Amino acid sequence: MPSSYRNFRNSVPWLILSLEAVFIVLFYFVFPYDDKFIMSYPDVNLMMIFGFGFFLMSLKRYGFSTTGFNLLLIVLGVQSHLTVILSVLVLLLIEATVSMTAVVISTGAVLGKANPVQLILMTVLELIVFRMSRWMSNTFLLVTDSISMMHVHLFGAYFGLAVSACFSEPSPRTDKNARTPKSDLLSMLGTLFLWVFWPSFNSILSDRKWRVIYNTYFGLAVSAVTAFALSVLTTKDGKFRMTHIHSAVLAGGVAVGHAAHSIQYPWIAMVLGLLASGIAILGSYCSQGCLNPPLKLHDTSGVHFTFGMPAVLGALAQVILLIIKNWNNLPSMGYLVMIQVGAFCLTISVALITGLIAGLILNLRLFKSIPVSKYFEDQFYWEFPHLAVGF
Amino acid sequence: MPSSYRNFRNSVPWLILSLEAVFIVLFYFVFPYDDKFIMSYPDVNLMMIFGFGFFLMSLKRYGFSTTGFNLLLIVLGVQSHLTVILSVLVLLLIEATVSMTAVVISTGAVLGKANPVQLILMTVLELIVFRMSRWMSNTFLLVTDSISMMHVHLFGAYFGLAVSACFSEPSPRTDKNARTPKSDLLSMLGTLFLWVFWPSFNSILSDRKWRVIYNTYFGLAVSAVTAFALSVLTTKDGKFRMTHIHSAVLAGGVAVGHAAHSIQYPWIAMVLGLLASGIAILGSYCSQGCLNPPLKLHDTSGVHFTFGMPAVLGALAQVILLIIKNWNNLPSMGYLVMIQVGAFCLTISVALITGLIAGLILNLRLFKSIPVSKYFEDQFYWEFPHLAVGF
Amino acid sequence: MPSSYRNFRNSVPWLILSLEAVFIVLFYFVFPYDDKFIMSYPDVNLMMIFGFGFFLMSLKRYGFSTTGFNLLLIVLGVQSHLTVILSVLVLLLIEATVSMTAVVISTGAVLGKANPVQLILMTVLELIVFRMSRWMSNTFLLVTDSISMMHVHLFGAYFGLAVSACFSEPSPRTDKNARTPKSDLLSMLGTLFLWVFWPSFNSILSDRKWRVIYNTYFGLAVSAVTAFALSVLTTKDGKFRMTHIHSAVLAGGVAVGHAAHSIQYPWIAMVLGLLASGIAILGSYCSQGCLNPPLKLHDTSGVHFTFGMPAVLGALAQVILLIIKNWNNLPSMGYLVMIQVGAFCLTISVALITGLIAGLILNLRLFKSIPVSKYFEDQFYWEFPHLAVGF
Repeated sequence: MPSSYRNFRNSVPWLILSLEAVFIVLFYFVFPYDDKFIMSYPDVNLMMIFGFGFFLMSLKRYGFSTTGFNLLLIVLGVQSHLTVILSVLVLLLIEATVSMTAVVISTGAVLGKANPVQLILMTVLELIVFRMSRWMSNTFLLVTDSISMMHVHLFGAYFGLAVSACFSEPSPRTDKNARTPKSDLLSMLGTLFLWVFWPSFNSILSDRKWRVIYNTYFGLAVSAVTAFALSVLTTKDGKFRMTHIHSAVLAGGVAVGHAAHSIQYPWIAMVLGLLASGIAILGSYCSQGCLNPPLKLHDTSGVHFTFGMPAVLGALAQVILLIIKNWNNLPSMGYLVMIQVGAFCLTISVALITGLIAGLILNLRLFKSIPVSKYFEDQFYWEFPHLAVGF
Repeated sequence: MPSSYRNFRNSVPWLILSLEAVFIVLFYFVFPYDDKFIMSYPDVNLMMIFGFGFFLMSLKRYGFSTTGFNLLLIVLGVQSHLTVILSVLVLLLIEATVSMTAVVISTGAVLGKANPVQLILMTVLELIVFRMSRWMSNTFLLVTDSISMMHVHLFGAYFGLAVSACFSEPSPRTDKNARTPKSDLLSMLGTLFLWVFWPSFNSILSDRKWRVIYNTYFGLAVSAVTAFALSVLTTKDGKFRMTHIHSAVLAGGVAVGHAAHSIQYPWIAMVLGLLASGIAILGSYCSQGCLNPPLKLHDTSGVHFTFGMPAVLGALAQVILLIIKNWNNLPSMGYLVMIQVGAFCLTISVALITGLIAGLILNLRLFKSIPVSKYFEDQFYWEFPHLAVGF
Repeated sequence: MPSSYRNFRNSVPWLILSLEAVFIVLFYFVFPYDDKFIMSYPDVNLMMIFGFGFFLMSLKRYGFSTTGFNLLLIVLGVQSHLTVILSVLVLLLIEATVSMTAVVISTGAVLGKANPVQLILMTVLELIVFRMSRWMSNTFLLVTDSISMMHVHLFGAYFGLAVSACFSEPSPRTDKNARTPKSDLLSMLGTLFLWVFWPSFNSILSDRKWRVIYNTYFGLAVSAVTAFALSVLTTKDGKFRMTHIHSAVLAGGVAVGHAAHSIQYPWIAMVLGLLASGIAILGSYCSQGCLNPPLKLHDTSGVHFTFGMPAVLGALAQVILLIIKNWNNLPSMGYLVMIQVGAFCLTISVALITGLIAGLILNLRLFKSIPVSKYFEDQFYWEFPHLAVGF
């Protein structure tokens, strides 16, 4: 494979370095620091870089690429985001980091199939499109900033799925995308980090911090409990399956995220967590059997049922809560519901359409996608051979 | 083993789901959120879910169950605790999480021997009994809330030991409860997390936050140093033993916990840390030789010398400090000492008696305990076979 | 090897215990707590104990020693530091922990070659000398405390290199200091922790907290991006090398640390991050080929190019920034530049000279250094054999 190696060597470093040059030049025109740049620093970064870096580590031969590329994409993405929104002269590091969640989730769908050049391009494209989609929500539908930000999981999951539909499927006989106990345990390490920091994540842009933290905590708690119950019910021998636990324990946090600021009773968050966990596990059961094969979708980390469907559930729940709350004021209710449904449809359709376009662009000959036989292999990108150890 | 598989499949999910249904219904009657629910969110949760999840991971074939069941029990336990104390209309998430320490410590004593149904029942029973024991201390002995909470290690360790006495011993010839360098290293990961967050944990319910943090830090520091020294002195070849380090580095934090708010000089905390570490290592030496065999105790993670005996030392130290402080006021001293000794005796006797009862209940035929030959095996509960890899 | 075992057993525990006795006696004379001991507790400790503990874990058979000795040295060092500075009656735990960075970095250079007795002596010596060096900067050059503290990386790296020059080189044919994917992955875990907490670390003693956090973040982000680009350019097949990523992603944080409080535009921090990453990777390329062999240096964890050279770059950048800022006021500029250059030369020459002396002391017959054939082996110190598993 000398040609693709050379191609890789020729394109990656120059792409990265020229991107950095662009960033530095653009940052040159940024005003100096002022006192408005306050944020609570380590929480979100710990979650994005450490939590997601290990959460996605489920492929046995793809550990280096998972953590390494995750760090690369996040730091590139944060800089691009800050560059993209320079026009409004706001330099909000935390918003940039939260936006990166969309990219990290999309990465999960094409993990092991896209090469670094494709991933970097996807990062830049997705951030621009997500920012556009939020701008459209904010301008035309008058959705507030913190609510449109909570569409980040929805956008990330469906954008990633659309991109992944354009990649060739891996050969079904290969065992390279198998999991091992070791990779599952390291993935559990990341999952527990995400679980613990999810309430901080949901509350970070909200002004009703404590309510959001409590609601998210209860949603997450119930979805973790339900995950264990449903996993036993859906597997053949009545055992737990680690993949179920990984995806379903987080589903509650995703679903509650949309409406967390407006839920007034803990039991509502708990019911949402229960439903989200059920959707995640039953969804994974159905989508492997009847949804993915005809669509030729291969969703490496199961982002569809971990982030996509729970986010749809969360958006639905928010509409229902609005209807119940404004029941005695029909015109206002109609208006509010319309806005919510509009924002949801806008986000999901922008994600699917631009995701497909991005997927087609990424599979142009120019970016020489890697051969299917080299999918899920660290050895293709990293110097250290994983020959004998099969991690 | 088709019968026990079926039994497991039949009971676990329905037990979990019906517990969740009960929680949701009870939470329905809770008042909506108000502004009093303030806490410092991620610290304690990071410690409980991530730290303890990996700290207990010392069995080579039990990694999935250790982290997975730890998460399940904590989220179930927090919800039961909140349900149990609904009567007083206080919804304090942080108190619930701190109480869970008792359960997690008890889990360590029966790790690999109890099945999930037994663990869930133990969680619910222990939380109710611990709450009862604290209520008795608070009401009859007028002990303050934050002090009775610091009995959490004492209660957890002796409750766990009493429960564990009712389980059959593992066959001495099996090597399944052996450690491997990998499991020890992951356990070290959890230990370091616990070590770093222990000062936050001790100070979380205290009103003299900084004094408690400093005292705990000095206690932990000296016990870590002493652990290395004593480990070399007690092993055959004069080498370090990882198990000693794991248990003894935390002993200082446990011992200082009881009196941290009233220690006025760092050197007292340091002496306590030194003694706690000594007790933990010498205790592990003696208890394996002469204490456990006649009592037929098998204490998987060594909770007796990591948490039990250092907590007894801490309670004793608190009494001695009280005597010294009130030396010139004998009647007041007598009263205060009586209260402390009374609270200590109450906690330990409630823990041992209810622990034995709980152990007998858990070993009823109804809950079909697992055969001794299947102890310490992930494979019994989880779908993924740990066949070739021996993690 | 019975003699060295006996020697080890005889010296380590008594050395540790007598050190502890000295600390406790000295702490006895410390004033009781007062309200001035405020710090932001867990961040720095999480970084030092957890982050560095796993960051240094790159040797395949030295995992126990890396994490274990790291904890031992940090807690011993914090106590010695507090004892050393008792004369000024300031009991600042956080300053003690930050000072320990120097020791931890020096440890990286002699990792696997020094035994615990040597490491403990090095810790005590280095802390005293570093405190002396800072005191000289503060007194004679009137450098502020928070600036002289940022020389911690510079001091640690060159002290460690000088000490390491006095140890025998490992045999070039041995493969014990090889890396495995597993040790690299655990090292990545520590690296990500350090990356996330580096901005907190740089800002912890500064009074312009947010500016320092932002500058460090941008420096780190650009150095992470550059690390990937340069790694592809410098390796033979055009692949990434994990060692490059580990060292270069942190280089930006080290370089920005010196001047972070005075950098007014993000692009300056970004350029510094780019240069630091380049220096780290090109430096590792050159030093392995032409610098280390003639000097007979063996730098186990590459602290020279990860911490040493980026710190030199940072000091240089600070001087250049001073020149630009005070261009129109030549006398003041000359004075300020002289102070900065003086402080830099003072730190680096004290580090090199005392490092050499410390290295010679450590290699006295009294401390019986371990034979070269036993370098990089956990088995020499720890009871658990790493025989079959090769972690």
